[in-house]
Amino acid sequence: MPSPFQRIGIIGKFGDPGIAATLSELYRFLLQRGHSVVTDSRSAELIEAEGVVAMHINRLPECCDLLIAVGGDGTFLTAARAAADFDTPLLGVNLGRLGFLVDISPDQLLSRLAQILDGRYQTEQRHLLQAAIIRDGELIHRQTAVNEVVVHRWVTPSMIEIVTSIDGVFLNTQRSDGLIVATPTGSTAYALSAGGPILHPTLNALVLVPLNPHMLSNRSIVIDDKATIEIRFSQTKQINALVTCDHLEIPDVRINDTIVIRKADKPINILHPEDHDFFHILRSKLNWSGGYSAK
Amino acid sequence: MPSPFQRIGIIGKFGDPGIAATLSELYRFLLQRGHSVVTDSRSAELIEAEGVVAMHINRLPECCDLLIAVGGDGTFLTAARAAADFDTPLLGVNLGRLGFLVDISPDQLLSRLAQILDGRYQTEQRHLLQAAIIRDGELIHRQTAVNEVVVHRWVTPSMIEIVTSIDGVFLNTQRSDGLIVATPTGSTAYALSAGGPILHPTLNALVLVPLNPHMLSNRSIVIDDKATIEIRFSQTKQINALVTCDHLEIPDVRINDTIVIRKADKPINILHPEDHDFFHILRSKLNWSGGYSAK
Amino acid sequence: MPSPFQRIGIIGKFGDPGIAATLSELYRFLLQRGHSVVTDSRSAELIEAEGVVAMHINRLPECCDLLIAVGGDGTFLTAARAAADFDTPLLGVNLGRLGFLVDISPDQLLSRLAQILDGRYQTEQRHLLQAAIIRDGELIHRQTAVNEVVVHRWVTPSMIEIVTSIDGVFLNTQRSDGLIVATPTGSTAYALSAGGPILHPTLNALVLVPLNPHMLSNRSIVIDDKATIEIRFSQTKQINALVTCDHLEIPDVRINDTIVIRKADKPINILHPEDHDFFHILRSKLNWSGGYSAK
Amino acid sequence: MPSPFQRIGIIGKFGDPGIAATLSELYRFLLQRGHSVVTDSRSAELIEAEGVVAMHINRLPECCDLLIAVGGDGTFLTAARAAADFDTPLLGVNLGRLGFLVDISPDQLLSRLAQILDGRYQTEQRHLLQAAIIRDGELIHRQTAVNEVVVHRWVTPSMIEIVTSIDGVFLNTQRSDGLIVATPTGSTAYALSAGGPILHPTLNALVLVPLNPHMLSNRSIVIDDKATIEIRFSQTKQINALVTCDHLEIPDVRINDTIVIRKADKPINILHPEDHDFFHILRSKLNWSGGYSAK
Repeated sequence: MPSPFQRIGIIGKFGDPGIAATLSELYRFLLQRGHSVVTDSRSAELIEAEGVVAMHINRLPECCDLLIAVGGDGTFLTAARAAADFDTPLLGVNLGRLGFLVDISPDQLLSRLAQILDGRYQTEQRHLLQAAIIRDGELIHRQTAVNEVVVHRWVTPSMIEIVTSIDGVFLNTQRSDGLIVATPTGSTAYALSAGGPILHPTLNALVLVPLNPHMLSNRSIVIDDKATIEIRFSQTKQINALVTCDHLEIPDVRINDTIVIRKADKPINILHPEDHDFFHILRSKLNWSGGYSAK
Repeated sequence: MPSPFQRIGIIGKFGDPGIAATLSELYRFLLQRGHSVVTDSRSAELIEAEGVVAMHINRLPECCDLLIAVGGDGTFLTAARAAADFDTPLLGVNLGRLGFLVDISPDQLLSRLAQILDGRYQTEQRHLLQAAIIRDGELIHRQTAVNEVVVHRWVTPSMIEIVTSIDGVFLNTQRSDGLIVATPTGSTAYALSAGGPILHPTLNALVLVPLNPHMLSNRSIVIDDKATIEIRFSQTKQINALVTCDHLEIPDVRINDTIVIRKADKPINILHPEDHDFFHILRSKLNWSGGYSAK
Repeated sequence: MPSPFQRIGIIGKFGDPGIAATLSELYRFLLQRGHSVVTDSRSAELIEAEGVVAMHINRLPECCDLLIAVGGDGTFLTAARAAADFDTPLLGVNLGRLGFLVDISPDQLLSRLAQILDGRYQTEQRHLLQAAIIRDGELIHRQTAVNEVVVHRWVTPSMIEIVTSIDGVFLNTQRSDGLIVATPTGSTAYALSAGGPILHPTLNALVLVPLNPHMLSNRSIVIDDKATIEIRFSQTKQINALVTCDHLEIPDVRINDTIVIRKADKPINILHPEDHDFFHILRSKLNWSGGYSAK
Repeated sequence: MPSPFQRIGIIGKFGDPGIAATLSELYRFLLQRGHSVVTDSRSAELIEAEGVVAMHINRLPECCDLLIAVGGDGTFLTAARAAADFDTPLLGVNLGRLGFLVDISPDQLLSRLAQILDGRYQTEQRHLLQAAIIRDGELIHRQTAVNEVVVHRWVTPSMIEIVTSIDGVFLNTQRSDGLIVATPTGSTAYALSAGGPILHPTLNALVLVPLNPHMLSNRSIVIDDKATIEIRFSQTKQINALVTCDHLEIPDVRINDTIVIRKADKPINILHPEDHDFFHILRSKLNWSGGYSAK
């Protein structure tokens, strides 16, 4: 049976030459198995082989049947945003340190990959967020996030005051350092540092996590992911706020803008080895010791 | 148009004589409008009228088209557990202090009630939990919970060690004072005191909230409410643990028992006034000041 | 007996014309009692009287026997920093909303003030912090804080990595949004929003509160206030960090700078009415309901 | 120079036969160096030697110049409570897993011990708590705690309501699962699981940590350790509450009793190797990764 993934794209961690050996090994392995391989422009320079075909990362998803991200969770996020408008599945390979999204380790790379290329894998859909900046009724900017959209205070050491509504219903006015709106994927990233709960990856939900709220009874709120979240600034004096999507800044958000956050139209498709276990990764990443005490 | 609710049951807060005036007013109002009214045995004694028909609280749901609980959230929980196996809808009336479940205040009682009896209301389904105690493969006890099932340490000042799995997959072994498994309804009750997130009432989810866990990175986990949660004790020495459902104790849980928690087969149906607003109740109950700052 | 406070300085909330009536009433009252009164330049314009003597806020402390701050806790902080190098005691008057530092309310202003001016008051010392920026072994900048010194990430949506040592002993390297070092006074301000504990005002201690730390087991640490805290940045790439003292920015902190934080040489002296009760203010500000249930 | 510690007492972890090798090695080493050695009764049975002198653990402190506790932090607590009324210093030896109090590891036991016995060590004083149960004005029971005194709900699945005052001043009425009063030593034990801050061991302070408080703005409060804390129950209905000192139950606390907690009269004296570093132990126990990034 031929592999379902004929054309494979490789995306490597940006600016990390230590990745060269893993990229080269991966490249040769795929060629040997008869796949056509194309990489992002920067990774191409790191692969020790001739004739490596490269293109801009944003063009890779439409040219490939599978995208392999090699690096940490950050590299995977970059690949996932690039793939957001396509159906191309994603696979994450770490560089020795397990990530929530990059669950294949280098020492198992070839054996795991062989299984997956042979069609033995799990597919998991993860929903993304889309943040839109609305000014005077017009869409000014739109950005996709895999983990979270954050509204922060910015270039002001004072708290900001933000007004949130959900599906048109007023939720609250909150003085704080900001507000995180995270997907289940993002619930184990920045939102967790801010005190948010862990959402199981398959849950159809979003979580709103306040950043150091002035009101001590402000808590994380978990809502259905079909909701539309609108955030505005309630302060009368001009402030500087910042909106980020997975740590990428949306430029030039103004005091009168409305930030509208909702689930993106298309999910991404992540491939995992057949024995993938989210709870195992959770225990490992959060240092939960204590193995299973069988009876 | 006749009211959809011909036969109405009243359940009053247990042991609170201060409730007599509200019960009596409610009773007379319903009779005047032509409904047949029946109450729980203890409430009957508080109603200043003759010929009040009373029965055991557990028999009320099958004899009524609507159950009205008068008291606090605790009274509503009692009514809801009684109604768990029936389709009889529930309505909550508070005694002057807004509750999450009892959202009609005495000063608006008659006008709000008239609207609802005329068919102008929202219906909301809330899912319950069912905890089963399994011993040597046999079901020993089963109990329903509207808010939460809690596994606590008990008659031991030391932490307990519990092993949790979800849909048969090991989640973790945890040393703590216990574990709360809460519904969205329960997420604003005990689970909130223990640091858990707020789940929107309509979310199809459950939350696991650890009680003072020894491992500081243990956090609340939100999962799909179709999941089956199994909890066992990992300690080798005999301990005393306690399992409660909405603060009601399940008697005689033993060290080798397995506690199986899943969504109950039937949801309860709660009626609300047409302008019911969960976020409004949330702001009120959690003292979130700060009204909407319209621009 | 003559008042111990002959020359009295008034500092009003900046930019709030609503303060005029209270300032004017206070001014006339003090003149009538025979005190000489001087105000900060901006407050002078709001007082409805002729011949008001005004000077820059920083010159007031050395010219007065008592400084009265009228406004919120923020106004008090401004007055306290101005008074940091002097022994002039401070008194706080709020504008209708009790603050932790401004504990005299307008409706009791004259009666309370009369008692204090007659010598019936409590004195409380509060220690301040001093933050010094050291670059290449030289002191670049020094700033005083009543509440807290904060090292924040700045103009970067990524976490910063900071290295903290206490009295020369390495404490930890921490990835986070920053670190708060707060006095007991500051423990009920920003540090509380960030999850820190409340320190009793008279405790000789400081608290380090991490801001959304990546490591979930990072917790607030309370240390003796005689300690010297050194904070450096561990990242190799250039970052922009910000250091603030009570929300005032220290300009131009660089990646290689060391921030040295220690107790300021002199405490400030706060006057309170004789029945001042910190716990009462705490209950009021934090909405702890529940009065004393006498038996 | 002769050792300052001629007569040495050994206290081993109760009920752990795996401790025998370490105890025996320690015993032989001390005899060889010319010390006289005496052990608690149970440890004597585990030492592979003849003529081991044993006595009840409570008699050891007055007969020894140094007490060595071998086990975990729990064993050290037992030794410390036994030594609470004496000046006998304590030394903690772990069984392979570093503890906050047992900071000598088996693989370094003999070399570390030789240094300490030769007089090269640090001494650290740790203050204990004393809990007194007062009924109708009379002292009913008194108990010492190294870590914490806890007032818990007990044999009731409902929260308890407790009234706390500090030095005779009302602090608050709190509905919760209970209240922890912890020493700096105890701040890294149960209080940390309950969300409390870390207090540096040398700080003259106590921390009150609420257990799952109903009021979300209830927070840990750090106060001077010279304070006297009084706790009473505010509920009118009879409840069962439990008071524990380091996990030991005080029997028969009643609804009308007052629990008075204050610093014990005498501190204990802990010996540490000269290079003892509390922050190092903290980093190790709390899994704070990230070493010092020297520049």
